Amino acid sequence: MNSFGRIFRLSIYGESHGPSLGIILDGCPAGIPLEEKDFDPDIQRRNPSLAGTTTRKEADRPQLLSGVFERKTTGSPIHVLFVNKDIDPSVYEAIKDVPRPGHADFTAQKKFGGFQDYRGGGHFSGRLTLGIVAAGVVAKKILAPVSIQARITEAGGSTKIQEAIEAASKKQDSIGGIVECECKGIPPGLGEPFFDSVESLLSHILFSIPAIKGVEFGSGFRSAHMTGTEHNDLIIDKDGTTETNHSGGVNGGISNGNPIQFRVAVKPTSSIKQKQRTVNIKTGQQTDLVVEGRHDTCIALRVPVIVEAAAAIVLADLMLLNSFSYTI
Amino acid sequence: MNSFGRIFRLSIYGESHGPSLGIILDGCPAGIPLEEKDFDPDIQRRNPSLAGTTTRKEADRPQLLSGVFERKTTGSPIHVLFVNKDIDPSVYEAIKDVPRPGHADFTAQKKFGGFQDYRGGGHFSGRLTLGIVAAGVVAKKILAPVSIQARITEAGGSTKIQEAIEAASKKQDSIGGIVECECKGIPPGLGEPFFDSVESLLSHILFSIPAIKGVEFGSGFRSAHMTGTEHNDLIIDKDGTTETNHSGGVNGGISNGNPIQFRVAVKPTSSIKQKQRTVNIKTGQQTDLVVEGRHDTCIALRVPVIVEAAAAIVLADLMLLNSFSYTI
Amino acid sequence: MNSFGRIFRLSIYGESHGPSLGIILDGCPAGIPLEEKDFDPDIQRRNPSLAGTTTRKEADRPQLLSGVFERKTTGSPIHVLFVNKDIDPSVYEAIKDVPRPGHADFTAQKKFGGFQDYRGGGHFSGRLTLGIVAAGVVAKKILAPVSIQARITEAGGSTKIQEAIEAASKKQDSIGGIVECECKGIPPGLGEPFFDSVESLLSHILFSIPAIKGVEFGSGFRSAHMTGTEHNDLIIDKDGTTETNHSGGVNGGISNGNPIQFRVAVKPTSSIKQKQRTVNIKTGQQTDLVVEGRHDTCIALRVPVIVEAAAAIVLADLMLLNSFSYTI
Amino acid sequence: MNSFGRIFRLSIYGESHGPSLGIILDGCPAGIPLEEKDFDPDIQRRNPSLAGTTTRKEADRPQLLSGVFERKTTGSPIHVLFVNKDIDPSVYEAIKDVPRPGHADFTAQKKFGGFQDYRGGGHFSGRLTLGIVAAGVVAKKILAPVSIQARITEAGGSTKIQEAIEAASKKQDSIGGIVECECKGIPPGLGEPFFDSVESLLSHILFSIPAIKGVEFGSGFRSAHMTGTEHNDLIIDKDGTTETNHSGGVNGGISNGNPIQFRVAVKPTSSIKQKQRTVNIKTGQQTDLVVEGRHDTCIALRVPVIVEAAAAIVLADLMLLNSFSYTI
Repeated sequence: MNSFGRIFRLSIYGESHGPSLGIILDGCPAGIPLEEKDFDPDIQRRNPSLAGTTTRKEADRPQLLSGVFERKTTGSPIHVLFVNKDIDPSVYEAIKDVPRPGHADFTAQKKFGGFQDYRGGGHFSGRLTLGIVAAGVVAKKILAPVSIQARITEAGGSTKIQEAIEAASKKQDSIGGIVECECKGIPPGLGEPFFDSVESLLSHILFSIPAIKGVEFGSGFRSAHMTGTEHNDLIIDKDGTTETNHSGGVNGGISNGNPIQFRVAVKPTSSIKQKQRTVNIKTGQQTDLVVEGRHDTCIALRVPVIVEAAAAIVLADLMLLNSFSYTI
Repeated sequence: MNSFGRIFRLSIYGESHGPSLGIILDGCPAGIPLEEKDFDPDIQRRNPSLAGTTTRKEADRPQLLSGVFERKTTGSPIHVLFVNKDIDPSVYEAIKDVPRPGHADFTAQKKFGGFQDYRGGGHFSGRLTLGIVAAGVVAKKILAPVSIQARITEAGGSTKIQEAIEAASKKQDSIGGIVECECKGIPPGLGEPFFDSVESLLSHILFSIPAIKGVEFGSGFRSAHMTGTEHNDLIIDKDGTTETNHSGGVNGGISNGNPIQFRVAVKPTSSIKQKQRTVNIKTGQQTDLVVEGRHDTCIALRVPVIVEAAAAIVLADLMLLNSFSYTI
Repeated sequence: MNSFGRIFRLSIYGESHGPSLGIILDGCPAGIPLEEKDFDPDIQRRNPSLAGTTTRKEADRPQLLSGVFERKTTGSPIHVLFVNKDIDPSVYEAIKDVPRPGHADFTAQKKFGGFQDYRGGGHFSGRLTLGIVAAGVVAKKILAPVSIQARITEAGGSTKIQEAIEAASKKQDSIGGIVECECKGIPPGLGEPFFDSVESLLSHILFSIPAIKGVEFGSGFRSAHMTGTEHNDLIIDKDGTTETNHSGGVNGGISNGNPIQFRVAVKPTSSIKQKQRTVNIKTGQQTDLVVEGRHDTCIALRVPVIVEAAAAIVLADLMLLNSFSYTI
Repeated sequence: MNSFGRIFRLSIYGESHGPSLGIILDGCPAGIPLEEKDFDPDIQRRNPSLAGTTTRKEADRPQLLSGVFERKTTGSPIHVLFVNKDIDPSVYEAIKDVPRPGHADFTAQKKFGGFQDYRGGGHFSGRLTLGIVAAGVVAKKILAPVSIQARITEAGGSTKIQEAIEAASKKQDSIGGIVECECKGIPPGLGEPFFDSVESLLSHILFSIPAIKGVEFGSGFRSAHMTGTEHNDLIIDKDGTTETNHSGGVNGGISNGNPIQFRVAVKPTSSIKQKQRTVNIKTGQQTDLVVEGRHDTCIALRVPVIVEAAAAIVLADLMLLNSFSYTI
């Protein structure tokens, strides 16, 4: 359940305020150069020094604890561990029985019967995405020279992102955003019609990233307003290059060789410094809650590198799978 | 690859113009009343007698070939087979080397090296969704009394659906649409944070339905324009009932007991009776193509019952999984 | 649960006295010549016309219902169906509440709460191995020119097999046997140390064949009596050829390029025409039972072709998996 | 590939002479008391202070790095890490290109193209079974009060085990052995006919334990010499209690409520201090090799607690799976 992928397969573990978090990567081919410093650029992109991100101070140093020998992958499982240091769980005592609106506190309580680690979201924390980013670094190496690039295109309904964040921050509120991703250099033929379409696999992992509430490929929801003559991408050469890319690079669930394009909707951060109404689930009494702790104003700022990692994980798996899908 | 689910698990097979198509359902509990006529209502909803759907004539009679004894499920795999009768593959000879824009013809060619059954989309055909609808009938029985209801809310950008279809049909064009689904009576606690969130599993199967290009939960893409104070659903009682349902019934990937709500974007049917430019992939020469055969003007009309089936399949699996997720 | 394999994956369904049984094969490469008559030789080997096999008369004609087009595999799922014809379930009414010793009647009752199809073992019947044999025919084509050969080496403790069977048949008793299998031409490098060793995967499918109670590789149980100097296979060339083959062609879970050799123990057929003591599970009363119907004296006679199929299924899957396991 | 189980699922990682090894346990129910000292008894059983085991000195202290909060399981993945300390890889330089007979050196080289960590067997090392033993400790807690007990019954063909080991040790040779296991208190109904029989799942994990070359249930290979009248276990009450237990507690792949009994054959340790002939795989030249390092004379001494863990892992998974397998 905490695993994903068929050949290039990850298993995630950890909690926000427990001793550690990390990821096991199975099925990575042998012989890929890999050392701890390779993770730094993407890990730093996940921690932008911008207004609107939390002040939690973590070095986020990856430890490579297996699967690498003489700075190359060995073919056996790769373990990347992150130790938690800047832990201040005291602020979370208040929420033990008082679920924060928009968070997983209530659902975790129902699922795990009160035994969950409730501190800072525990296993549900966005902090777990560190492991996904680390897996993405390895996946991008498998995929090279494929290019995967995501960026935030709007926040709070505005393309003036930094301004929108500052305005929301002043009001002690939070805002959502849109992240777009484009993957270039993917060969045609990846994916399956049922049930492992490229869109199915990408959306599967994307919707496990906290705060993502919508995924669309190519023209996506705009397709619903279009006609077939507008939407159909005319094929202009025998490599399958199309004049437009309304399909987002996927037909019948299979990559068509054009760029794979998708957008995700990121909801506003649930933690806000304003008083909110909720219920004490032990007593049933309504109560007001101010969520203490360190919060991002716009979690969407961190999402691009996570979305890239998610896309790389799926595409690396499909590339490895595809290499055997031969014909006589 | 052609399987889906962990406990309640389906395997799909078949082609549009081959001898048959169908589904194997594994993991269905024993003792559920099931006979062939139970499939009729949903199968008929997939074949609406409306302007805008194809004139292919198939009785679509399910045959229950295993897993049922004395009109009850036995606990062993259930096989539902549909025989194809109204086959006229001759019209598809023209597309053998000339991929239809918007279809999987080019990608199937690349994936299967020319050995694919190209007639009417072969294994990629929307006709395969018959098997999904059949699986949904069984899943709904497992879920009873949960209610799952989907409906088309707009087509071609218009809420006057029938008019929009007639207008498009006159122009020999096609249109897309939006389908909404609501699932009531789902207990809290279903799903996993990583990687099997409720949204992950639903989107996985939804994006394997041909023509679906976007999936959003609750406020979905509108969340990106909202603030935290607007979006957070305030909790009003100890059962987790919320004042609003912007989250679509899911927090942290786990059902919260409120209705699960989602919307899908359906692209316009790729097959249109107008001349379109494409390429002969053997010769590389550009050519014009008129897609013969029988086509829906608005494939979104068929989608609600398929979306219901997809949702029921995921939720039945999660309900069965959840029944063991005990605490001491 | 009724599926097996990672890339070349089978899903089995059916009952002994229901309408049909069969198999769906997923992940078969496209372009392999395949037609119905290709199944005949192995299907006939499963039905030896020998003293000691049942008199049930079934043509066992496979129907290829999907995944094949113009007599070649298409890359989409292959469905092989067998219709049951010679059904006489009346004889099984007697065992409805009176489980036959050695059979799955009691365990099926406990697992499926009385809803199981109890006629002739239902889904537990050895008749289901027809589907495995059919899958093996396809797997052998994928593996060509690998050679997989199994044979019965003893029955009832005797190497004079036909005589042992005739003697047992006269006494209205049944006997067990030993089947050996050798797979030649397997490259080194297949399998995984944890948890998908070649031995793990082979034993997994072998122990799902009814009546198999032991599996050993190479020297197997004799290894326990040996010393390291006796057992170690000395390596004599850089291809890894070994002087002896006590390891059965597998080291550390991985094929070493020498023949893969294993033996299986087949228990005596549980159905015998002698009176046996059992219990009526409804009333709790002890009772005597004579098992009517048509029985093999020595089920091991049918096992070689099933064991070959099982081995071919595992090895085809590993060969497809291995084709991507590259190094930089 | 390095994962096992459906609900209670483990992922293994690590190397013999790398920085660490360990296991991630997914699907463990919440609320089970668990702390680091709970692992001590079984970990110590894996390290018997007997003549015949290696002198490597490792404290083998487990670190619980996730999934436990306030000394109870949380329902999220449990990470158990072991740090390697007593590392002396220098002795392994000699085997870099000269595979040791009986070991995975040659097969690892072929599988991973020379990038494998060859020191002390790397990921193939029996040291990885520490993770399996740790998983077994958790599985036994899930299964309580089920009793699982394994013991060595013979070594080197002798029941005088300690004497046999001393004799072999003097000759600088090694010996194999037999380990028996009995699981009491397992309810009827666990397992599946195809392909996840109780025997299939147990043998799958057992054959991933290094050095195991044979697995048999109940009468096992002796069944092949028996008649049906001898082998059939007569049922004596409505709970399915049988007079004998030739079937080893499993019929048709499903547990029948009687003790599950099986035996495994353990080959002699491959590392011996005698000169052995092998080949340099780079030059192709034959050479003599004396395997340095610290070796067990009889690896079978360590196997009982590992076999118990393997059985507990499978049975815990089946118990969790079974809890949802309801009937209407």
